[in-house]
Amino acid sequence: MRDDDMLRRFYSVIPAGGVGTRLWPLSRAAAPKFLHDLTGSGSSLIRATYARLAPLSDGRTMVVTGRAHRRAVVEQLPELTDANLVLEPEPKDSAAAIGLAAAILHRRDPSIIMGSFAADQVIHPVEAFQAAVREAVYTAAEGYIVTIGITPTHASTGFGYIKTADPLEIASAPSAFSVADFVEKPDKATAASYLETGGYHWNAGMFVAPVDLLLKHLDSKQPELHAGLMEIAAAWGTPARAETMRRVWPTLPKIAIDYAVAEPAAAAGDVAMIPGTFGWDDVGDFAAIGRLNAAAEMSNLTVMGEGARVYSDHASGIVVSDTKRVIALIGIDDVVVVDTPDALLVTTKEHAQQVKSAVEHLKASGDTDVL
Amino acid sequence: MRDDDMLRRFYSVIPAGGVGTRLWPLSRAAAPKFLHDLTGSGSSLIRATYARLAPLSDGRTMVVTGRAHRRAVVEQLPELTDANLVLEPEPKDSAAAIGLAAAILHRRDPSIIMGSFAADQVIHPVEAFQAAVREAVYTAAEGYIVTIGITPTHASTGFGYIKTADPLEIASAPSAFSVADFVEKPDKATAASYLETGGYHWNAGMFVAPVDLLLKHLDSKQPELHAGLMEIAAAWGTPARAETMRRVWPTLPKIAIDYAVAEPAAAAGDVAMIPGTFGWDDVGDFAAIGRLNAAAEMSNLTVMGEGARVYSDHASGIVVSDTKRVIALIGIDDVVVVDTPDALLVTTKEHAQQVKSAVEHLKASGDTDVL
Repeated sequence: MRDDDMLRRFYSVIPAGGVGTRLWPLSRAAAPKFLHDLTGSGSSLIRATYARLAPLSDGRTMVVTGRAHRRAVVEQLPELTDANLVLEPEPKDSAAAIGLAAAILHRRDPSIIMGSFAADQVIHPVEAFQAAVREAVYTAAEGYIVTIGITPTHASTGFGYIKTADPLEIASAPSAFSVADFVEKPDKATAASYLETGGYHWNAGMFVAPVDLLLKHLDSKQPELHAGLMEIAAAWGTPARAETMRRVWPTLPKIAIDYAVAEPAAAAGDVAMIPGTFGWDDVGDFAAIGRLNAAAEMSNLTVMGEGARVYSDHASGIVVSDTKRVIALIGIDDVVVVDTPDALLVTTKEHAQQVKSAVEHLKASGDTDVL
Repeated sequence: MRDDDMLRRFYSVIPAGGVGTRLWPLSRAAAPKFLHDLTGSGSSLIRATYARLAPLSDGRTMVVTGRAHRRAVVEQLPELTDANLVLEPEPKDSAAAIGLAAAILHRRDPSIIMGSFAADQVIHPVEAFQAAVREAVYTAAEGYIVTIGITPTHASTGFGYIKTADPLEIASAPSAFSVADFVEKPDKATAASYLETGGYHWNAGMFVAPVDLLLKHLDSKQPELHAGLMEIAAAWGTPARAETMRRVWPTLPKIAIDYAVAEPAAAAGDVAMIPGTFGWDDVGDFAAIGRLNAAAEMSNLTVMGEGARVYSDHASGIVVSDTKRVIALIGIDDVVVVDTPDALLVTTKEHAQQVKSAVEHLKASGDTDVL
């Protein structure tokens, strides 16, 4: 099969879940991270994700998101057909979300190769990303579940790692490696040793796989989940779609795709990796917003938000304005101010990661109206 | 005359002007400093001022304020009669405001001794303040304009100073001094030398004076202003009051009482001083709010505002909440956050004085809707 023909078998799936708790109060249940323009590019993260994949899978992109986000997603992605928009009645973790996409695509054509790419990551240059996806598709066509690993830039303890073994020596995918193992988020010393010895990449949750291979592993590890997804997929193009989804989805087990598919497949020698040579950021906290905004290069103060009215005097950091209020910052450095109609966050870049615990505290104390 | 009889000649005047720019965005043109409870006492500053004076001048207290604040002032001081509420159609500085009160009182009884006390100062214990005012009344009765000086606690460059000469040796006012001079706000070195040598007190703008003596000095220095005020005062108890105020007030010269009365009177040897032995604060900025709130002793974070919903994690400083929004502070020290419906201030205690320049900048840039 020619490479171009192989690419025509390629379908992109964008799971758009995850509230992005560390970006509260900007990102929240009603308006999660992927719906925001966190880079000042003019596009929301999901729109940018879609656009990045369009040259590879134009018209062949599926989105899986919560029912509550239907309107916002359709507004962001007017090209999306109803058949390619999967709305979860309730969150069921990644194996159900991605598995359902695989099952629906498998019924369309069992030879489809799908790629799964989270809706809320920032990647550039897009050409390097697309080249990696192409290699991943060619590798997947050889019978692999192919992750795209991120070359570590520092000893991060915030990501899981992918341990590679030998090069696979596939002609159209010269950078493909076989994967020895997935390893959980390490402690600082272990992360440093990974960076030192090499052979470890960050697991960004991006993978490309033949849908039949993915479903085979899912069936083997999670037969109940697999059966439920196949039942929904069988009803997908029929009048029974809505009823079946409503009836079956709530019964599905909650499990991450890593445990349900990726790790068992790696143990079976079925997983490969393409090293990503592009810049990648999962916009994990507000400090990332400072890094990612082009405007930050011109000033010590990054201001995000349409019509923001910010006055600053000897101030640096990040302001996210989701209101039309005047915001005055005076004599304060590396501050993070996130101003929304019903909640205000004031922290520092250094403490940006701790926003998550604030959200947990608010949840525990019953202040759920702002979450 | 017995001392008690003398006290019955005493009238309090509370000039309630001044936006309190350093307390923006809490204090602003529409809701100035004196209308706020800045100490967490449960009373606005003007209510606390009135209550502090009531034992000395119950039913004999006059308020001079801007027309826009009529409703708020009456709400705070329901005891105030219409005859004792002077509403300025436009601000004309302190000589006009205090001079009009003096002129109105002079028509009621030329033997009245008035005391002028700003509406936005914090004083305790009130007993020590009242004792100082009593001494000031007895001294005024001897034919003096009597300032109440504040004993300096540090080498402040933010206040003018009163330089005393000899004790006056008045039997009922043993702590009265004659005043040699008023001096302008000094530089740091000069302020330090004042503290070192003694004999200097802060000028808090508090004074007690026979209305006829005050008006005599005003007439001598500012005859035009004096004539205008006497014309309004003549109409005060008559149906012509409103018309006269409207016609004459706008024509009055703008000048501070210090230049129009206090300094010329001091040069003439007519000014005395009673040293205030009470705690005094003019609530000059948000750092003062941290100092003055009793709650601040229990925690590093002072929270002001009814129904404030503040979550803090390793945070210290001051939060003033004028909205019902959730405010989360994480990992930030000595911060000042002032949250109002249309404007947000984030600064530090150390930079609290610079809020004034932010307001000036907003004014210059046309953002006057939030001032």
